[in-house]
Amino acid sequence: MGGAEIEQLIRLLARLPGLGPRSARRAALQLIKQREALMLPLVRAITEVAETVTACSVCGNVDSRDPCVICADQRRDGSLLCVVEDVADLWAIERSAVYRGRYHVLGGTLSALDGVGPEDLKIDQLIARAAEPGVEEVVLATNATVDGQTTAHYITDRLEGSGVRISRLASGVPVGGELDYLDDGTLSAAFRTRRPVAGE
Amino acid sequence: MGGAEIEQLIRLLARLPGLGPRSARRAALQLIKQREALMLPLVRAITEVAETVTACSVCGNVDSRDPCVICADQRRDGSLLCVVEDVADLWAIERSAVYRGRYHVLGGTLSALDGVGPEDLKIDQLIARAAEPGVEEVVLATNATVDGQTTAHYITDRLEGSGVRISRLASGVPVGGELDYLDDGTLSAAFRTRRPVAGE
Repeated sequence: MGGAEIEQLIRLLARLPGLGPRSARRAALQLIKQREALMLPLVRAITEVAETVTACSVCGNVDSRDPCVICADQRRDGSLLCVVEDVADLWAIERSAVYRGRYHVLGGTLSALDGVGPEDLKIDQLIARAAEPGVEEVVLATNATVDGQTTAHYITDRLEGSGVRISRLASGVPVGGELDYLDDGTLSAAFRTRRPVAGE
Repeated sequence: MGGAEIEQLIRLLARLPGLGPRSARRAALQLIKQREALMLPLVRAITEVAETVTACSVCGNVDSRDPCVICADQRRDGSLLCVVEDVADLWAIERSAVYRGRYHVLGGTLSALDGVGPEDLKIDQLIARAAEPGVEEVVLATNATVDGQTTAHYITDRLEGSGVRISRLASGVPVGGELDYLDDGTLSAAFRTRRPVAGE
């Protein structure tokens, strides 16, 4: 093969999510072939991110500034606080452009199996932020998994009596989804929370 | 999202084979989360490869040395010359550890559709290497695709009269393959080139 340097590069690339050993080899070759167009720009980009990007001390988002662009943006609605498990979820909500409030990244979910307790997540910080003046509603946007919902319930318990409204994302049929392919849980949630159609 | 630096990193990662926009975002987050364990080692690894690795001037393999380890290895059989399309194919053959001769990387295949002619590949260099004293056999290991086979035929024509033996990889049933799933071309090749079973 191509020597220890290439082997080491392939080993590290294979640890990226979505890349296995075979695609890591293809990626390494692609980098070598496109030295000027891809390899050197990638080195610069990773170095820049390594030097500038940190976790936002307010919400847990990652950004080159602290507080992050979202926390620093005065036009965003400070009365809304959206709780997500991970930065990837925050990015997904931002891409949908449906939400203009602020965020709180927990850094995971409660998990008895993996031994993750409340002290391992940013839950105390969330309770403190929810108690700040101006915060009116906490939107629980944890994943619709068992661990995600357990975490949402735990946070709901902790926030009880704090005076903020607590909401969570609606469950139901995904847009473009076919009923035939939906699981029973989603279908029954969609039935239970069905909404009246406005009469024309 | 996370600022221009992260956006640029995601854009570059998405150009790696096997990574789309979604997995590039996950890879970028993974890098940010595993700064010491993954991001900084990856920067070092890519930088090292960028500084040291070049194409071998003899065979076209990529390595931190020129001539590459394979060309420099005196224990390898200099009478055999295996012709492959790409460095990835060379790596695949090396992993199988079945071949102990030398290589010649063409850098692609002839392709009328893509406008790739003989002058765009390292075919003249191959003809020159095949004429060197000591070379006895050229093994054509281009892919079993239309372009790969066209290229093999073209090289066969060019090598005619040079005195070297020309061979190509056997076609047939892959080890572990089920006949039911094989295409007709492979099955008919396997029948045409069937071999007598040694009597016990």
